[in-house]
Amino acid sequence: MAVPGPGYAITARVEAPASATAAGDLAVAVGRVGGVMTAFDVVESRAEAIIVDISCNALSERHAEEITDALDALDGVRVRNVSDRTFLVHLGGKIEVTPKVGLRTREDLSRAYTPGVARVCQAIAARPDDARSLTIKRNTVAVVTDGSAVLGLGNLGAAAAMPVMEGKAALFKRFAGVDAWPVCLDTQDTEEIIRTVEVLAPVYGGINLEDIAAPRCFEIEARLRDSLDVPVFHDDQHGTAVVVLGALRNALRVVGKRSQECRIVVCGVGAAGSAIIRLLLPLEPADIIAVDVEGIIHRDRPGLHDSLRWVAEATNRDGRTGDVHDALPGADVFIGVSAPNLLTAEDVKGMSDDAIVFALANPDPEIDPGIAAHHAAVVATGRSDYPNQINNVLAFPGIFRGLLDAQARGITDAMLLAASAAIADVVTEPNPLFIVPSVFDSTVSPAVATAVRRVSEAERAGETPGSVQEALDAGADSADGARAAEDG
Amino acid sequence: MAVPGPGYAITARVEAPASATAAGDLAVAVGRVGGVMTAFDVVESRAEAIIVDISCNALSERHAEEITDALDALDGVRVRNVSDRTFLVHLGGKIEVTPKVGLRTREDLSRAYTPGVARVCQAIAARPDDARSLTIKRNTVAVVTDGSAVLGLGNLGAAAAMPVMEGKAALFKRFAGVDAWPVCLDTQDTEEIIRTVEVLAPVYGGINLEDIAAPRCFEIEARLRDSLDVPVFHDDQHGTAVVVLGALRNALRVVGKRSQECRIVVCGVGAAGSAIIRLLLPLEPADIIAVDVEGIIHRDRPGLHDSLRWVAEATNRDGRTGDVHDALPGADVFIGVSAPNLLTAEDVKGMSDDAIVFALANPDPEIDPGIAAHHAAVVATGRSDYPNQINNVLAFPGIFRGLLDAQARGITDAMLLAASAAIADVVTEPNPLFIVPSVFDSTVSPAVATAVRRVSEAERAGETPGSVQEALDAGADSADGARAAEDG
Repeated sequence: MAVPGPGYAITARVEAPASATAAGDLAVAVGRVGGVMTAFDVVESRAEAIIVDISCNALSERHAEEITDALDALDGVRVRNVSDRTFLVHLGGKIEVTPKVGLRTREDLSRAYTPGVARVCQAIAARPDDARSLTIKRNTVAVVTDGSAVLGLGNLGAAAAMPVMEGKAALFKRFAGVDAWPVCLDTQDTEEIIRTVEVLAPVYGGINLEDIAAPRCFEIEARLRDSLDVPVFHDDQHGTAVVVLGALRNALRVVGKRSQECRIVVCGVGAAGSAIIRLLLPLEPADIIAVDVEGIIHRDRPGLHDSLRWVAEATNRDGRTGDVHDALPGADVFIGVSAPNLLTAEDVKGMSDDAIVFALANPDPEIDPGIAAHHAAVVATGRSDYPNQINNVLAFPGIFRGLLDAQARGITDAMLLAASAAIADVVTEPNPLFIVPSVFDSTVSPAVATAVRRVSEAERAGETPGSVQEALDAGADSADGARAAEDG
Repeated sequence: MAVPGPGYAITARVEAPASATAAGDLAVAVGRVGGVMTAFDVVESRAEAIIVDISCNALSERHAEEITDALDALDGVRVRNVSDRTFLVHLGGKIEVTPKVGLRTREDLSRAYTPGVARVCQAIAARPDDARSLTIKRNTVAVVTDGSAVLGLGNLGAAAAMPVMEGKAALFKRFAGVDAWPVCLDTQDTEEIIRTVEVLAPVYGGINLEDIAAPRCFEIEARLRDSLDVPVFHDDQHGTAVVVLGALRNALRVVGKRSQECRIVVCGVGAAGSAIIRLLLPLEPADIIAVDVEGIIHRDRPGLHDSLRWVAEATNRDGRTGDVHDALPGADVFIGVSAPNLLTAEDVKGMSDDAIVFALANPDPEIDPGIAAHHAAVVATGRSDYPNQINNVLAFPGIFRGLLDAQARGITDAMLLAASAAIADVVTEPNPLFIVPSVFDSTVSPAVATAVRRVSEAERAGETPGSVQEALDAGADSADGARAAEDG
């Protein structure tokens, strides 16, 4: 089911004979070994030869080599060099720090730096909270990792995590105007991570934890939420949970079920799975069955870690046991944040009518979405090459935009629920192939931001949303507003 | 000697009668109380009244109030509101984080973020040094402070130090294309500061320590230089020393003396004074006399802290004692980095012929430069409203540009000496009023960068500059090159 994608895109500079058939020969050669040509640019044309840049997508680094070998094997053709476009994009890093103030004249310097800056420093020393308006703290988030769980790649360490954190920072700005900065820590000691973030917190109006392994991530998040006066958000937990709940809201609309009548299987109880379960609980589903590598989680399972104990208490009211295959018969919803190819067509077939399957393991889902679609009413994955991509980019930029605009000092489940409803309700008429908006839908981030800001302001005013429904309604209203603003 | 400067600039929105004399009346009122009007903009004109924005520089916040009171007191005039232009510049902070890569299409996302980014992470995990080319580490410096010695204001803490660090980051970009990020630490514990910087180092290609109190700053710098594989620079020490030595090089040219024949008094032995002495030693002056609040430093002075012990060993070969007034008679050079108004005209008069006086205490120098100029051949200060401003902006951007370009793993005194020579030699014909280039001279930063890079590359190739003269020559050559590039 793999298709050549832009993640493995190369550009080969090729010298070929100046013949009428040269272009065709080159294009055919790429296609014959399964490459997808995306651009063809003649950069030089001489009497006897042409120089061409051929860009194409491949399946893997090895496949890219096969493509260039195929070009090189053509009569009279020579591949001069091959550049990997993904690596080219990364050269020198993906973000930069730019001044927002003019620095052309001595007067400019006197205001932005010494001597003028001294008065601003003194103002903040006298009223520390003024840092939220007179410094970058107003609009700046730390993207913090220890490199222990980078993407699905594992424990690569701080330096190797940089490209992800820089990419995240670029997305923050692109989708919500938030300034974000990579904080890649050369330690994997829980206490040291916590203390380091506390020490560098004065610069930031929010903390986004990222790619930190479970269960360490739970303690780090909980402790920092206690000690800091800015919101602490763990994207692998809360970002994923918000988008999953938004998608589920629309999937349930499509099949005409209410969450209260659904049995939901959550497979994978790491950072994402735990947060999904926590955010599902207020929706009061008929039951949640949580499954990890050791099987279904139940109260009597021996050796439950603290991070699973509360799951065992809050789910599986009938005390089921067994593995994921035992959990699925009759279930209404499957949410997988676990490992590739765990499910069979039979598993999905055995679910209730109008089943919903979110197979979110990356890059390979718990079940081929094409196969799942034969038996389920709605299917979603984490991939961009299938419908219904569950992508955190829908959540984190808007959430922090809202938190910063509200000068929030913390983040609550009510805000996350409101964000999920806002994402869902940007889609006016959901259907089985369209339960989440596109990441490029420009109404998403404003809708999410407004929802989060409203709940934050209400909570600060002492009007804690009385019910889950109120939080969801705030999100729905915000989506309406964002759509209306876009139309108007 | 104070003159209204742009550090206290206000803009008052004023409603005045629509009369032929209104503009004149307003301007006269500002001038009468000592304000300096810099702009006058009519924003609205009606039959009976005009609305005007009057911008002016003041001496202090109180003086700004006097000016607006004077306006308000005019017949028929009403001051509607007053905005402080320095604070306006700071609203929301002075720097931002911007993507360097396009993020318009799904293909863009696939390359800059998942799934493409995974290959870049794996490449760095396999070869950690690739982080220097594939991430922002290539061009990024941390501006680290604990807020313990902010400008001349003292221990204001991390949050209040932010405006200075942001300003510094803006200058780094403006003058040398370096991405710099404020790291304001909420701790003043030496061990915790060291460990925090070590932990967050993977992101950065260099560390710029800033506004950290002495003697703590010495240990932090020394320990980090040992433990990190990127250059560690303390601007209050090394930046100041580099510019002072550059200025001294030209001042000696102006008076026709060689450093070897000079007795140099350094007053103030904190961060800046220590570094100046350290960088002066290779120039082998006839003698250095160091003076601090307790008087002249000599080997037998009781209670010498470790950070002064080496000074006592390296200076004052005749074992002089007394205070600063006892140090000056017959001295060729005075370098003050201490406190306002320590010297009298008599002190300067008692120096040798063609004396050089650098009175760098900020904002008020060790002696009024106008008075010093009666008796000294060359006078410099830290102020922008007198000739010969010793400003670190001449040094730090170019120094880090050179270090980053050389992918340097450390910084040496030879690099600093080369930088000082480069700054000096940008001025082709120094005279008593022109011993350092303007901060806006666009040849300075490239000259300094080239000098530092050359020495770094030579050192890496094992060609440690054999003599001080070689390092200085590298700087001089770089200044020639930068001027030629500008002319060409």
